[in-house]
Amino acid sequence: MVTVEIRIELKKGIVDPEGKNVMKTLKLLGFSGVRSVKSIKVFDVELDASPEEAIKSGEEMCTKLLANSVIQDFKVTVR
Amino acid sequence: MVTVEIRIELKKGIVDPEGKNVMKTLKLLGFSGVRSVKSIKVFDVELDASPEEAIKSGEEMCTKLLANSVIQDFKVTVR
Repeated sequence: MVTVEIRIELKKGIVDPEGKNVMKTLKLLGFSGVRSVKSIKVFDVELDASPEEAIKSGEEMCTKLLANSVIQDFKVTVR
Repeated sequence: MVTVEIRIELKKGIVDPEGKNVMKTLKLLGFSGVRSVKSIKVFDVELDASPEEAIKSGEEMCTKLLANSVIQDFKVTVR
């Protein structure tokens, strides 16, 4: 059994409204040192497979279901 | 400038409907080896602070805004 971490984030240049709103709110709450906030989605997937197969599967999951390749990048790593 | 990763996930025992639905759909798509899926929210926050201060700030951000301490755990690490 292997656990892969699938990390999905917006591509550079794509607006991140969630991140922007979190940054605004943090500043309103007094966190003045905040320079940027980026929102990221992660899935930890447990798989019956070898680490190499698991990474391949994870990438396939992203292209078929989890990520929108027009605006998102993904990275699959074994934990 | 420091970047902290704030990782927010559901506590053990709390139902994760997003993860469950992703798992169901992955199985329907033919990924039969999937054993579990856990959905996690991550924020990468850039801060003007020392690493120690940044971690403290990150934890404060979670308690004040980002995490719901009743159902979620958080972990703050410097990247």
